[in-house]
Order: sequence, then C-alpha cells, then structure tokens
Amino acid sequence: MTTADATKRDLSTMLRPRSIALIGATDRSSWSRNTFDNLTKRNYAGEVHLVARRGGTVHGRAAATSCVALGQKVDLGLLMVPLAATEEAMADLAASGARNAVILTSGFAETGHGGAAEQEKLAAMARRHGISVLGPNCLGYVNFLDDVPLWTGAFRAPSQTGPIAIISQSGATASFIASLAYQQDIGLSHMISTGNEADLDSAAFVDHLLDDDRVRAIVMFTETIRDAHRFAAAAQRARAAGKPIIVLKIGLSDVTARSAQAHTGALVGDNRVFDGVCKQFGVVRVNSVEDLLFTADVIARTGVLKPKGLGIVSVSGGACEIAADRAQLEGVRIPPLSDSAAQALTEVLPSFGTPHNPLDITGGAVLEPDLFEKALRIMTGQPEYAALACLFDVPVSEEQVNDFSMNSLRHIAAGLKGAPIPAFMLSHTFRPVTETGRRVIGELGLPYVSGGIAHGVTALGHAWWWSEQQRRAASPWSPATAASPSDRPRTERAALDHLARHGVPIVPATLATDEASAVAAARALGGPVVLKIASVDIQHKSDIGGVALNVEGDEAVGAAFRRVMAAAPAGAKVDGVLVSPMRERGLELFVGCARDAQWGPVLAVGLGGIFVEVLQDVALRVLPVPPEEVRRMLGELKGAKLLDGQRGIPAADLDAVATAIARIGDAVVALGPALQEFDVNPLWVRGSQVEALDALAVWRD
Amino acid sequence: MTTADATKRDLSTMLRPRSIALIGATDRSSWSRNTFDNLTKRNYAGEVHLVARRGGTVHGRAAATSCVALGQKVDLGLLMVPLAATEEAMADLAASGARNAVILTSGFAETGHGGAAEQEKLAAMARRHGISVLGPNCLGYVNFLDDVPLWTGAFRAPSQTGPIAIISQSGATASFIASLAYQQDIGLSHMISTGNEADLDSAAFVDHLLDDDRVRAIVMFTETIRDAHRFAAAAQRARAAGKPIIVLKIGLSDVTARSAQAHTGALVGDNRVFDGVCKQFGVVRVNSVEDLLFTADVIARTGVLKPKGLGIVSVSGGACEIAADRAQLEGVRIPPLSDSAAQALTEVLPSFGTPHNPLDITGGAVLEPDLFEKALRIMTGQPEYAALACLFDVPVSEEQVNDFSMNSLRHIAAGLKGAPIPAFMLSHTFRPVTETGRRVIGELGLPYVSGGIAHGVTALGHAWWWSEQQRRAASPWSPATAASPSDRPRTERAALDHLARHGVPIVPATLATDEASAVAAARALGGPVVLKIASVDIQHKSDIGGVALNVEGDEAVGAAFRRVMAAAPAGAKVDGVLVSPMRERGLELFVGCARDAQWGPVLAVGLGGIFVEVLQDVALRVLPVPPEEVRRMLGELKGAKLLDGQRGIPAADLDAVATAIARIGDAVVALGPALQEFDVNPLWVRGSQVEALDALAVWRD
Repeated sequence: MTTADATKRDLSTMLRPRSIALIGATDRSSWSRNTFDNLTKRNYAGEVHLVARRGGTVHGRAAATSCVALGQKVDLGLLMVPLAATEEAMADLAASGARNAVILTSGFAETGHGGAAEQEKLAAMARRHGISVLGPNCLGYVNFLDDVPLWTGAFRAPSQTGPIAIISQSGATASFIASLAYQQDIGLSHMISTGNEADLDSAAFVDHLLDDDRVRAIVMFTETIRDAHRFAAAAQRARAAGKPIIVLKIGLSDVTARSAQAHTGALVGDNRVFDGVCKQFGVVRVNSVEDLLFTADVIARTGVLKPKGLGIVSVSGGACEIAADRAQLEGVRIPPLSDSAAQALTEVLPSFGTPHNPLDITGGAVLEPDLFEKALRIMTGQPEYAALACLFDVPVSEEQVNDFSMNSLRHIAAGLKGAPIPAFMLSHTFRPVTETGRRVIGELGLPYVSGGIAHGVTALGHAWWWSEQQRRAASPWSPATAASPSDRPRTERAALDHLARHGVPIVPATLATDEASAVAAARALGGPVVLKIASVDIQHKSDIGGVALNVEGDEAVGAAFRRVMAAAPAGAKVDGVLVSPMRERGLELFVGCARDAQWGPVLAVGLGGIFVEVLQDVALRVLPVPPEEVRRMLGELKGAKLLDGQRGIPAADLDAVATAIARIGDAVVALGPALQEFDVNPLWVRGSQVEALDALAVWRD
Repeated sequence: MTTADATKRDLSTMLRPRSIALIGATDRSSWSRNTFDNLTKRNYAGEVHLVARRGGTVHGRAAATSCVALGQKVDLGLLMVPLAATEEAMADLAASGARNAVILTSGFAETGHGGAAEQEKLAAMARRHGISVLGPNCLGYVNFLDDVPLWTGAFRAPSQTGPIAIISQSGATASFIASLAYQQDIGLSHMISTGNEADLDSAAFVDHLLDDDRVRAIVMFTETIRDAHRFAAAAQRARAAGKPIIVLKIGLSDVTARSAQAHTGALVGDNRVFDGVCKQFGVVRVNSVEDLLFTADVIARTGVLKPKGLGIVSVSGGACEIAADRAQLEGVRIPPLSDSAAQALTEVLPSFGTPHNPLDITGGAVLEPDLFEKALRIMTGQPEYAALACLFDVPVSEEQVNDFSMNSLRHIAAGLKGAPIPAFMLSHTFRPVTETGRRVIGELGLPYVSGGIAHGVTALGHAWWWSEQQRRAASPWSPATAASPSDRPRTERAALDHLARHGVPIVPATLATDEASAVAAARALGGPVVLKIASVDIQHKSDIGGVALNVEGDEAVGAAFRRVMAAAPAGAKVDGVLVSPMRERGLELFVGCARDAQWGPVLAVGLGGIFVEVLQDVALRVLPVPPEEVRRMLGELKGAKLLDGQRGIPAADLDAVATAIARIGDAVVALGPALQEFDVNPLWVRGSQVEALDALAVWRD
C-alpha cells in the first residue's frame, strides 16, 4: 500500500459542491464580483450563498452574516476574508456543517516565517474541523466538466470541454495555461489553483482526477513538491491508469550556484533530483507552457504509441525537412518508406520519382487535392509507423477559407479518418484556432494539432518517451523507512563490510598495523597491491598522500607502509593501513548516495573521473531502486558507450553492474536517515567482475 | 578583397523593376493568375506586360507573342514556360533588352542528374545573355518596401513594412514564414524565394540587402549552402554592417548516420561544420520558423546588447519563475537587484518585502496600475541590465479590451517609453497579434514581442550571443587558396617536420634504423622514451603494436626496438623506429583537419581520449583561423574546465596552445586541396609547454 492510498482524500464534494458560500463577499472586491459573476452567469447549477460580516446586500442579493446564519448546510465555502478573520470564518464554516474550504486569503507561508506559522495554524484548524482546504493564497478552481466555475478572476473556456486537467500552484499561471488552451481551443476538464497547499496538495488532486474517466491527461505547474512521497505515489497511480502527468517545474536557476561544486551533494540539486524522479516514475517534464499543453493535447490523441516511427506527409519539401530535423532533435524516428509503400505511392501519385518519408506530395496537390487522401491512406497503413502527421493549416479567418484549402482539408480529413494508427494534421507553424478554425475543424471532423512543427514534434517526442515508460515493467516503489542503526560504519573498512553484508562484492582488504603484517598481507594477495591509510579521521586519503598504488615486492610494500602512515596529520586516530590487490584494466564507476531533504536517499551513478568531475554526467534516482532501473540509469549516461568495452577493457556485464549498484542502494537505505552521504568510488568493473574498491560513509551527527 | 566583393552583383533592377513581363501567361495557370493579381491589385507602380506564345487575351488583357514583340525594353521577365521552352524564352527576353529573369519553371536540378544538366545550360545561357536569374524552381519575391509583389502564389502582408528580410530556398517555406509574420504582425522588408539558385544564390541577396538601410535583419531558410565562400563573405559583411543573419538550416537528420564513426571525417559532418561556420562568422542558427522570426524581431528592436543581464517585471510570481528558468536554459543572465534598486522599489511599491529580479509587482497592479510605470522606470534605469522585458499580454479580441488591461497597458507603455535600455513587453505565451491587438499596440505605441516567454527569451539568448559576436575583434577571413606542394609529407617524421617549418613546436624525434642507434638516441635524450615504428605504409601504429611507451634503460630500449620492428606487417616499407622523449603529466589535445567538399579545410579541436572518441566533443572552424578564434573554440568544449589544470597538471597556457593550433591550421592550409586529412594526436600541453607528439597526413591520391 502506498502513502497515497493510505491518505487518499475524497474530493468529490470539493470539486462538485451542490452549494457554495462566498464568505467575505463584498461589492468592493473584484475577486468577490468575479466569483459571483462566474458562478451565476455561467452554468453553475448549485446554490450560491453570500456571507458578509455585516449582512446587507452584496452583488444585489441579501447576504447572511455568517454561514451558520444561512440556516442550511453548504458543501463548500470560499474564504475571501482578511488573514486575521480566517480563524473565525473557518470555525463558522465548520459549525454550519461544511466540509470544504477554498481559501483566497494570502499572507501565509508565501510571506516568510510569520506567515508560515499562520499557515500551520490554518492546517491544524482544518484537521480539527475535518475541513478539506484548497489554498490558501489560491484563485480557486474551475471544474469545466461539471460546470463549477469557482474562480476568483476572469477566465476563458475553450469551446468544448476536454480530457486535460490543469493543476497549478500559481493561480496566474493556471490562467495563462487556460488562456492558451482557449486560444488553441484545446478542451479542458479542470483548472485548479492549489496555492500554498496547506492541506490538499497537487498530488491529492492528481490522485482524485485519475479516477475520473473523463480526464485523460494532467498538466501541472509546480514550484515545489510539497510531499515527495505523495507525488511519487500519485505518479505511480497515473502510470498504472495509463494517464500522463506532464509537468512544468521551475527551479532550474537555483541550481547554477551549486553546480560549481563536484561532490555528490552538489550533483544532487533539487532540479536534478526532480529530473531523476520524472524518469523514474514516467512523468513527462517540459520547459514551456506551450509544450505543457501541446504535449497533453498530443498524448490525449495518440495514447500509448508503439515503439515505431512517425510518418509525415506535406505539400512542401521545406516543411518535410524542417519536420525531419525537429524529429531528430526530439528523438522521434522517421523510418524510411518500405519498398512496397514506395511502390504503392508511385502508382497512385504518378508524377513521383522515388517517394520518401517525409513524403512531399508537392504543389501538385493544388490541382489534385485527392492526392492527399490517397497518400494518407497508404502512409497510415504502413507497418513501419506508429503515428502519422500531415502538415497543413486550418484557416484562421473567413477570407482564408477558399476552394483550395477547403478541398485539401476535406481530402486530408478523409485520408486521416479511420486510420489504423493515431494520425492527425499538424499546422506548419504555431497558429491560433479561431472561430473560423473551430467551424472548419468541426465540419470536417479534423484531428488538428495547432502547435506547429516545433511544438508538435516536441510533443510527439514526449509522447514516445511516455509510451516507453508505459510499456516497461512497473517496479512498485515506496519510500525508504529504515531507522539508522546504532552501530554506524564510520571507516572505509566498516563501510565496505556493510556493503558486503548486503551482497555487494568488495575488494579484499587486510588491515595491517605494522610493516611486517603489511608485507605479509601483500604476499598473501600476490601481485601488485594498494595501501591506504585507515583512519576514521581521514576522509580524503589521496589528497594527503595516504594512498600508495601499484606497489609490488616486500621492500616496496614496507616503504609504502611507512610513507602512508607518515602522511597522517598529527592527532588523527590511525587504525593502520588497508592492503588490497591492485585492480587495473577495468572501468571505474562512481556510485554516490546523498540524502535529499524532500526525497530521502538519492542514488547518483556515473562513470568515474572526468565524467563526474568535469561533465557532471550522472543519472539520479530516489532509493530504493531495482536493478532494472539501474540499467536505465546506466543507459542515460553520456559516456554510456564506454560500458560496451574499449581497448583492453571488456564490455561490462550490465546485469552484474546493475545488481551490485542496486544492492549498494539497499545497503544505504538500511543505514537510515542519519546517513548524510555514502560514496563508492570507484566501483571497479571488468566484464562480469564488479568490486567496490573504496567506500565512504558520512553521518549527520 | 573578398570573393563577394569581387563578384558582387547589382540587384536593384531585379528587386525594383519599372516593368515586368509575365512570360507564359495563361488564364489556365493559377501561378499566372496569382502573379497578375498580386501585381495589378496591390500597389505595384510599374508596368505589367503579358507574353503568351499565341498572343490573344490573357487575364483580360492583350498578350504579346514575345518580349521582342512588346516593342519596348522591360526590366524583368517572369518565366512560367515549360522546361523545354526556357531556352527560347531566355533568348527572347535577352533580345528585348531585359537583364533580369525570375524563373518559376521546375524540372531542373531538383529532379536529379538530367535536370542538373538542364540547369547548367540555363546558367550558361544567363551568363551569355548577361541576364541575372532568380530561380529556377522558385516562387518569385515580394519587395514589401517598394511595393513589388512579384509572387506566384497567394500571400499575406503584415500591416506595416518592417526591417526584416526573408530569403528562402524553399518558396513554400518562405510563405510559411511570411504567414507567421502576418499572424504576429511583424513587419517585413522582402520575401525572396531563391529556388535552385542556378545563378543568384541566397548570399548574393544578403549582400545586396545589407546595403539597404531599411533592412536591419535577414532571416534565411537554407537547405544547402551553394557557395560556401560567398556565404562566408556575406556573413562577414553583415557583421561589419551590424545586421544579424539568422538561419534555419536543415540537415540535422543526415548527420546521424555518420555520427557512429569516430575519426575526423565523421566529426566534420555537414551539419557540424555549418554550426562551426555560424560561430565563426557570427551567424545566429535557430531550430524553428518561430525562433527564426522572433529572433529577428527581438534583435531588430534591441540592436547590440551590452554584456549585462535582463531585467524582468511581471504581475505573476509563476511567470517570473518560468522566465528566469527559461533564461537559465538560454544563457541569459538575470542579475540580482542592486541594493539601491531594491531600496527605490521598496519606496514606491510600499507593500513590498524585498524586491527581486525578476520583479513580481503582484496582483496589486490590478488596483494600482501605475505600479507598472513606477517599477519599470526604476528597473530600466539600473546599470545592471542591458535590456528589460515586462511580461503582459495585448488583447486579441475586442471583448478582452477592458479597463484593467487598458490601464495596465497604458502604464506599461509609459514605463517603457524613453527607457535608457532596450525595453519591451513580452506576452506570457505565444499570442497572435490580431486587428484588435494592432489597434491597441498602435494607439499606445507599445513595443511588443508576441512570442511568449519561451520564444521571447530564446530570441533574447540569441540576441546576446549575436551582440558578443559584434563586439569581438573582426578577423577577416578568406578561403585557403594554396596549391598542394609536389613534395607531400607522408610519414609521421615528414608531417612533424612540416609542422615545425610552420612554427609548431614538435617533440624531438630521432629515426633509428638499428637497435644500437635506438639505444644511443634514447641515451642522448635521457629519461624514459617512446619508440614508434616509422613506415609510410602504417597509419595506425598502436593498433598493430608498433608503439612502445615509457621505455627506460639500454636493455629495455633494445628490446622495445626489436618488438616494434617485428610488429610491421609483411610487405610494409619500414624506415626504422622514431625515438622520442616520453611526455607525461600533461593534457592531450586532439587537433584534426579534414577537407570538406564545400568549405575546404576544416579544423577540429578537442580534448583527447574519451572526449573525442566517446563524447565527440570537438569545436569546428573553417581554415584559416587566427589564435583568437582557436581560444573561442577551446572555450566551447564541454571539457574546457580541464584546461584550467587538474591534479598534478598545471593550467594550460591558452595563448601558447591557441598559437600552436592556429599554426597547425596554417601548415594544413599550405598543403593544398590534395590533402584529405591531417591529424595531430596528441598535441601535448603542460602549462606553457606545447608539443605535437604525433602527426598523420592522409592524401587524396
């Protein structure tokens, strides 16, 4: 059972109240006026009550002096009262029997420490009264599907409802996303402004909406993940439900300051962890409001795409090339035409030489618009393609509606209709969907994506990535919960032993306390050895000369023992010297784990040396992770090719590597929350030989 | 004198003809009808003549049977005749005294070999007749500034002319760009479809338009660069003129197939060379039609930006964060507010805690719209900012025109007006500029960029990059012209000697033909040495065991000599063994030169080993390059940080490195066009010690 299942909240009355009280209603407030207008002039079918401290007439209606004074239970109260009046308003609302509050009031956690304390109080009050709270500092929500326009500002609705829900921590940003949806006529199901999330957070709404069959995609604007584990649980439920979550999360710019450092702590910045989380849980992350919406629009149309490529049809060679290039950038494959498809196209399009994908049916379509239909029928029927995009524009004004465009559009619609694969028409460039456009689209039943090649193909790239995530085996994840043991490994030896107990292969290491035993240990190992100073006080052994590599022969080992021991700074407690066999001709991986305040233990995997130090080329996940997930991490590395082997170094046994790394993760999880960092550097790999050569545990105390 | 100066063509009559003959005019052709309508129903002030083989009435006018039959000289003929009739039409046009032809006719090089031959004939004809040709296979051009709508299709013009010229090899793509400009009301100066460029290429039009003061930015859609040196010359002239060239060039997808290989030839794919060329000549390269146009729009507004950051003002915290994140992605700096600016803002905006950049003036602006004006005046006056963007939308329909938006817009316009830095209003998301929008923008004199945060900030990133290119010292470039010498270096020794003659420091190397002389050479050098087999027949010495590293002592040197000599395959002509001192504890760079069919010798610089082999992390330029340019190349490398030094390796003396690499480039240029590839691998660097340790010349013969 995941966290989310345990705490899942029923939000049906919150999002579909039969009656709403506007608390703190006043003619002087545009928020109050807007909300009243939205509820009374749009199609809200429930009752709207006005509550104003002094009663009187507000918005032309009699206002009650309190919720209790209404004399009937309301489902939901919208609080527009000043901060100082919140407590009383909540008590009144509770007393009236309501179980849902939407709180517009600001001045809470967004203002700093004082406000955060107020917010704590508010959350406690909500729990005490058994009231679910949306906000504070939110603009409300619109449930487009059920006609509940509980929004404190002006907003515009697309001409039809649709399968896309917007959940945004910023109310203004929710508005911008909805405005864009209106402009492009992309149908919405909900727009929810979650504000400070004192009680209900974005994940709670995701959880709720996943159960609504009418919602097929969820787009989120997120400033911070309030409860990491709830988010992970909701993301896993979304994956199981086959509904994409698409996120625009800000926070890139915070990371720059930290990126100059080079240890695990810096590699695990908030932004990079979130990237890892998205990959881990199959959440699509985008960089703009446009991509947020068009990605949802495209995935809602395509569903899970097969692991095949995209077919493209256009009347312009230039557009074909632009689309193919964009596909290249976005990782979308454009498979060549099969011989049979080329043959079929040559027959129906007699003016052709050798047809290609992308297919340029040329300006000939001006004279013969049924070329479109013929070409589309052939292209959509090819087994090489999982989806097809026909590049063409819908008119934006009546004067653009002419015989050529309408004829072409009619044949395109006919060619796309009943296609055995997801097939749609994509505008050449970003174009609004105007009233004229809506009419044409409606009349012809055109499946149209209006983001242009740039946003459309980017969205397709996300759709394929998401489809891959849907296909891979689900490995249920739940957060690490172990307590820190009392016996905490603090030395390299102890850290390696801890790994060994969790099944991680480690390099043999003998602790030698004098020169003679060092020589004996080296002899017993045979071949060149490594000597490393063993001291709980020394973390960075190499930096102080506490490591001797590739030492061979009694004399050399003795000398190295003396040298390494002498390197210890005065006062350091030294246990002796660890003697291990020298490992060479292998690949050195870096496996670091650090504790993130939100996510708990985070695993970073990279190739050693410059890959981590110079290129910061690491893949991140939140622990625990199974070996399959580690294999995906390895595949994400820029230097992944090195794992295939190089001169003198055999290809790495990826199963063995992934298993060892997953076990390192388990070993770290077992050390509990007092562990700050745990680095295995390097994890040595030669074919199927995998060994942790060094380990370092850093504790918070 | 550059190539372009030498061949510069006067295109003033081509682009501003006083009379035009439509040759092959017929009522049956939509091209003919469109062109006639465009010329006669828009504002073309010159004369339009119709020429049809059989004469008669065309488009309601009498048509002449030939240009000669017109009985007067025309400035320009538009050929719409079939391929087979082109020759006769050109001869007739020339006989009539015309000096310009625009050729719509297709069936030339775009169709393959046969067509290419026809195109050669056409080009020869043009030269013979002294006629400048635009096309063939083009759609014509529109000179918006001088009202010459010589376009064979329908097109839409933005409400005002503007400073942006479109030059496109694809006519349909030119249309898409112009349609987008119309939709966003971005003013254009020209739209030129260059088609197959049999005579005049895109660079010729760039060259011409640079001299027109009314043109301030040139956007290009390019499928292939027809004449690399003309393009380079035009780009250099544009840089000197302070006018940006912004290019969308397709060809990314061609490159993938080659990218699997790992030698210089593969590193120097067409697409990557063009990337290097753009960096070298300060040409902005973009990935979408939207970015093409908005980048031109933004640069035309900002001009050269100072090397400072961007100030951002918004009413939404979420929008501030989205903009800041986008800025981070696009390399745009968002400097923090100075204390004095924060103080000034706190005073005029009393509800503020600590103001930041981006500045969120909050929903308070709803009540007090002059907050905008006050905040903008303070923000635009700060010395930290080179430009300012105020995030706000222009209404797209009359119903969106309300008191709040108009008041806000009025105050924004006032706050931006007279700003001491480029300052504009940027829409939150991509929005069309409708008739309502044009009216509002016009009335208020709003400097508005309608691409939304995503495209707007991307454009700003390009604007800053371009500004940097404008600031750096111009290093005039002209193509390498040396002939290949008859005495061609073919061995490592000869290649190193050739480098030395060009002032490149090389490692000492003695050719030893027997064991005794190898031992003597090693003794003379002192310290550990390297032995490498010297044979004109062996290019990859390491692969066959022909290299012995780090050899020390007579005995070891003798053994290594024997081993290396024995590694030669049967039949190889072996000169002996090169004995050099072993170089360690330095950085190893890769310097490769390959000959590109279009650009001539191309220089690739990277860090050795995995950086080149695994990451393909190289910077490219076309030769020759001065040391300053090499320094910029080094700065572009992902692994550039390694040049700052690492454990045991001092920081590289970048001047010494850049000078050595530039000289390698010069040495390569001197080897002329028969040279196929020249690799220095590695160029060893330790502080200010720089030495070519190995060199390989590969000849075409």
